[in-house]
Formats: sequence, structure tokens, C-alpha cells
Amino acid sequence: MPMTAYPRRVRIVEVGPRDGLQNEPEIVPIETKLTLIEQLADAGLPAIEVGAFVRPDRVPQMADTEEVIGRLRPRNDVTYIALVPNRRGLERAVASGIRTIAVFTAASEAFAQANIGMGIDASLTAFREVAAAARADGLGVRGYISTAWWCPYAGRTDPKMVRRVAHELLALGCDDVDVADTVGAATPAEVSGTLEMLLQDVPTGRLAVHFHDTRGTALANVLASMALGITTIDASAGGLGGCPFAPGALGNGAVRGADVVTTGNLATEDLLFMLHGMGIETGVDLEAVSAASGRLASALGRPLPSRYLRAGPLRLRGGTPRSS
Amino acid sequence: MPMTAYPRRVRIVEVGPRDGLQNEPEIVPIETKLTLIEQLADAGLPAIEVGAFVRPDRVPQMADTEEVIGRLRPRNDVTYIALVPNRRGLERAVASGIRTIAVFTAASEAFAQANIGMGIDASLTAFREVAAAARADGLGVRGYISTAWWCPYAGRTDPKMVRRVAHELLALGCDDVDVADTVGAATPAEVSGTLEMLLQDVPTGRLAVHFHDTRGTALANVLASMALGITTIDASAGGLGGCPFAPGALGNGAVRGADVVTTGNLATEDLLFMLHGMGIETGVDLEAVSAASGRLASALGRPLPSRYLRAGPLRLRGGTPRSS
Repeated sequence: MPMTAYPRRVRIVEVGPRDGLQNEPEIVPIETKLTLIEQLADAGLPAIEVGAFVRPDRVPQMADTEEVIGRLRPRNDVTYIALVPNRRGLERAVASGIRTIAVFTAASEAFAQANIGMGIDASLTAFREVAAAARADGLGVRGYISTAWWCPYAGRTDPKMVRRVAHELLALGCDDVDVADTVGAATPAEVSGTLEMLLQDVPTGRLAVHFHDTRGTALANVLASMALGITTIDASAGGLGGCPFAPGALGNGAVRGADVVTTGNLATEDLLFMLHGMGIETGVDLEAVSAASGRLASALGRPLPSRYLRAGPLRLRGGTPRSS
Repeated sequence: MPMTAYPRRVRIVEVGPRDGLQNEPEIVPIETKLTLIEQLADAGLPAIEVGAFVRPDRVPQMADTEEVIGRLRPRNDVTYIALVPNRRGLERAVASGIRTIAVFTAASEAFAQANIGMGIDASLTAFREVAAAARADGLGVRGYISTAWWCPYAGRTDPKMVRRVAHELLALGCDDVDVADTVGAATPAEVSGTLEMLLQDVPTGRLAVHFHDTRGTALANVLASMALGITTIDASAGGLGGCPFAPGALGNGAVRGADVVTTGNLATEDLLFMLHGMGIETGVDLEAVSAASGRLASALGRPLPSRYLRAGPLRLRGGTPRSS
């Protein structure tokens, strides 16, 4: 049987400082954010999502995005990214000096309505103007597609809809398209199926994947994606974000409590551990990312869900093996 | 690019009642064990590891194995398995009425010495007599190989050693060979490499895999195994076992505490969720397994690490989507 061919090198887009911290119940101090971002950049992450130019009254956690960007040490080797929902957001992004923005829509009409307050087509129309203006200013543009496999309102997403939205995002000026398993319900065969359809239109190098580890399948989904040549993968330091604390989410009579940690975003550490174990280069220092996440966990006062962060590297036991 | 072919059906060997409960710090009441096993059997699991005929003074948690087996409701459709380390254990197994035993060695000399108190060759010599006697009594025999990828004493395991031990186990009368990533450090390319070497000698149907999810790679390793045709996969209800509580295992300055859950065994729920999502049949009812694990978690007084168990199925939100 032939060996599956995986990429030799993968580019990780770190989303922890935005997608991860956005849902924290307490406002995270800007110093904590800046330390996290600088440590992640020092660890070698080539792209980091650092904020969102959304309405501060709706997303207070992102209200300091201008100041975060203004205080980051300039680096030629790191792409900083901020979310931009509309023209007003773009004006703020341009003024902040950031060089890459991300626009976001969904492949499920119901989710688009619920999450961004407009339909998919309306969002694409709005982004056309935003993307054109961004490109005129020389900015890079990422396009996010939420609910690319499953929607919490509509169930299974039609891959043809993902294909149509991806096509439109590229047509309106996005450099690449990032497809997300927003609710963490996709499995590898579904991932392969949708990606194979997308790859009929989208060059491999312009397609990124964003998996949630809610039900444990994120790394298996990464494997299925890499088998199709995908080389850009989102991840979040420590597994930050998604739905870190979900009291009552256990169901089935299991123990409930505030100490119950469920996971959303794929943890950067878990991804790095798998990739490096497979001999796939990332240019990122796993232990440096773990140190950044560990420091953040201390600042937040709770453990983060990354499995690697909890287990650590395999440390060999020294001395004479214990005989039992 | 061609789609990877996965098996249409997978057989799950449930190891929670033995491999999972064995490391519980408090003795688990026999009623709790019996309820768990009966519920897992009712859920459709075709094979369940229920105990170990090891020395009760060394492994008190398994001291009730005879009574467990004696009190289980007879079922034609479930294979119950108990570990047997030696001739004395086999006598107890035969007397108990169990029909399948498992012998266990390692692919790392240092681990064999530490874990079973003898070298690999000595263990194989001992098993030759045990397996012959078991087969003479009509019992099925599984052969386990620990540290098939990594050893906590010796580091990376030589795949040629795994191949040699697997060959010997089959030659001495094992029906199948089960290779284990005991420390949860293997990644998919390593899994593929060792399995491809093993499959030169071992028919696909006689090879089983046992992954630990310590660093999050278990399901990705399952995917790599299935791509090579493997159809027998060990898993543990709720992710029970391995090292459920590891205070101080966080490292890197992260928050430490007794509420920190790390994981060992691949959770049966997480495996079922992925397989069923891929359209692979198991004959097992995922929600029934979750219910059994939930009940066990309540009995143990703490949450179990399975991600699916915590997240539950994707429940669609009814009514009109919220507009933000």
C-alpha cells in the first residue's frame, strides 16, 4: 500500500490572542495580551491574529485592538492579522497600521444571520467594497468561512455552498480562504470530501483549515487535510477559546462543575507535537509556545485544555529501571 | 488525488474495566464494575477487557477478577478478556470460566524489566507454556506489546524489535497481536512506519492497535492505522485510565492542581464519534457508552477526560436564530 504523502512544511496561523481570548469572561489586561503575542512571535509563529475591529460595546474584549497593534514590536517575519467586519472596521485597521485583515462569513445562511446579522450574499456584497479598499491600500486579505461542515442551527452544511462562498471570496479579492469547523463536529471523511470539492476551484496554497477539537477530531482532520496537500493550519495557543468552560455540558449524568474543561480551538502545542513528530517543519519552537501558554494560564488562573501542555514532552526516566 | 480507503467496519476492544480502572487510587466497588461492564456490553461493544489474574497484593484493584467474571451475565455476542501474566494466572483464568486471555510483554527491554520484572525473551519463554496450555483448553489468546513506539526509559523503540516480538507472539500461539503506544508519544508517520513493517509478517486481521491520547494524537494515529487496513482498535470508556490526574504535570509555569485532568487511553466515545462520522460501522451505540461513562464518572466523583463525553452530540438550536 502506498504511503500517504504529507507536506514537508506547514504554516501555522496562531489565532489565540483574538479567537481564543475573545470569549474570555473577564477582560484580559492589555499587558497580558502583549506578552502573549510577543512570546508567540518569538516562538517562531509566522502569522498571528491579534485583534478585531468590531464594535467595542458588543465585543469589549477586543476594544483595545488599536492599542495592541500600536504597541507590538515591529517584525518583518510575522504577519499580524485583525478581523474587519465592515468599512468602518477597515478604516480603523488602516489607521492602526496592521498589514493583513480578515473578513468573515459562513457557509450556513442561518449561522450568518445569527453571527454577523446578515445573510451570506449581503456579507459578500459588503466585503467586496472592504476587500477592494484594503487591496488598494496594499493590505493582505484573508476570508473566513464559518460552519463549513456543520451548523448549530441547520445541521450538516452542503459542500456546494462552501465551494460557492470560497469562490466568491477569492473573486472579491481574498488572498486565501480559511474554512472552519466552527462547532467541532467534522470527521476526516467529511473533511476530505469538502476539501476535495474546494480544491477543484481553489489552489492548495490558498486554502487554510481551522478545526475545533470539541469532540477530539481536530488532529485527525488536520491529517486528512494534509493528505490533500493543505499547508496552512489555524491553531490557538493552549487550546484557548471555543468554549473553555461549559458547566452542564457533560450530559448523561456525568459530574458537572466549574472545573470541567471542554475544548474549542485546536491547540497549537498539540498540532506542533504531531507535525514535528511526523518530521514536518513549522519553524516554531514547541516548548516556547508551551511556555507562553503556561504563562497565560497563570494569568487567567486556570489550566488550558491543550493535551500536550498538560502532559509535556516525553521525559525519559533516568537511572536503573525499577523492577516490580 | 485518490481518496484514502478506510475499512467499512471496525471492531472496538473496550479496555476501560481493566486497563482503565486498574490505576484508580481508590478500590472500585465490584457493583460499580459489574454495572459498567454490563452497560458497555449492552451498548454493543463486541470485546471487553474485564480483569487481570495478577497478584492481588500487587494490584489490589484487580483482586476481584474471579468474582467479576463469575457474576457477569453470560452473553454469546461479547468476548470477555482477562490479562494473564503466568501459569498461575492461567489456572485462575480457566477456573473463572473466561474464554479469552491476554499475555503482555514489551518491545523495549528496559520497559519489560520495569513493568513485568523480566526481559522480553524470558517473557516470551514463559508465555509459550501459558499460550499452549490456554489453547489446549480452547481459550483465545491476545498478545500485547507495550512501548511499541516510545519507551519512558529507552526513548524511541526500534520497529524491528516490534516486528520480532510480534512474530514470536504469533508463533507461540496468539490469535492476534495488539501494539500499544504506552506513553502516548507516537505520531501518525511513526504509526504508519511501524505498522507497515509489521504487516509484512502479520495479516491485517490479526493486528490490533492501542493508542493513548496523552498528547492528543490518538485519533490521528487511528486514522493512519485504518489507512493501512487495521480494523481492531482498543479504547477505554470515558478515556478512563492512563494517568487521569497528574498534579504537577503541566510544566512551564501553568496552573497546577488536583482538578487538572490529563489523559491516557483513547476514549471509546471519541473513537466512536469519529468512526460513525466517517460512516464506518462498529455495532456500538455511542450514546449508550456515554451513559455508562457518565454513570461511572458520578460513581468515581470526578469528570472523565473524553472530549465527546464532555461536549455531547451536536444539538441543533431551535427557534429563530438570534440576530446580533
